[in-house]
Amino acid sequence: MSLTMVHVHVKSGFMKDFIEATKVNHENSIQEPGNLRFDVIQDPTDECKFILYEAYISDEAASAHKETSHYKVWRDTVAPWMENPRQGVKYKMLCPDFKKA
Amino acid sequence: MSLTMVHVHVKSGFMKDFIEATKVNHENSIQEPGNLRFDVIQDPTDECKFILYEAYISDEAASAHKETSHYKVWRDTVAPWMENPRQGVKYKMLCPDFKKA
Repeated sequence: MSLTMVHVHVKSGFMKDFIEATKVNHENSIQEPGNLRFDVIQDPTDECKFILYEAYISDEAASAHKETSHYKVWRDTVAPWMENPRQGVKYKMLCPDFKKA
Repeated sequence: MSLTMVHVHVKSGFMKDFIEATKVNHENSIQEPGNLRFDVIQDPTDECKFILYEAYISDEAASAHKETSHYKVWRDTVAPWMENPRQGVKYKMLCPDFKKA
């Protein structure tokens, strides 16, 4: 299991572009084998702040995501729109127990 | 749509009890009509820290959760085990677009 929250702070002028590019990444990422979650969420108190809540069945599946063309296009497209570099924070998923499923 | 991350800091001696009680809450909560997510996740750098990642199709469904007996039992059971009061932080879910589904 791999669970990462990617914290993103977007420059205010690029919010709409960021959402559009990230929706495309979401749509492709949820088709990947081993993807369990790819939620894109926004802080309602500061709409420039987003979290990508990404879960994969294994570290290998999470690594494979970073080799996909949709990830690479997203990464390179959104990089100049960021207020500061995005930060990935790892968590351990206790429930649901996807290993049991 | 309603999305809340509930941040929980458990006293170190009660970690196992907290996980057990929260698993029961999870198993019941995912059966609720309108529940979309009820992930229980742990900070691997500080195992006393947890997040409940709870999404419901509407504010009404999220409120109904707080009226269930499993929620009330969980709330009262875990309260004395907390290092400090738990904190709910609201987010806006952009993707998936559950309203469209």
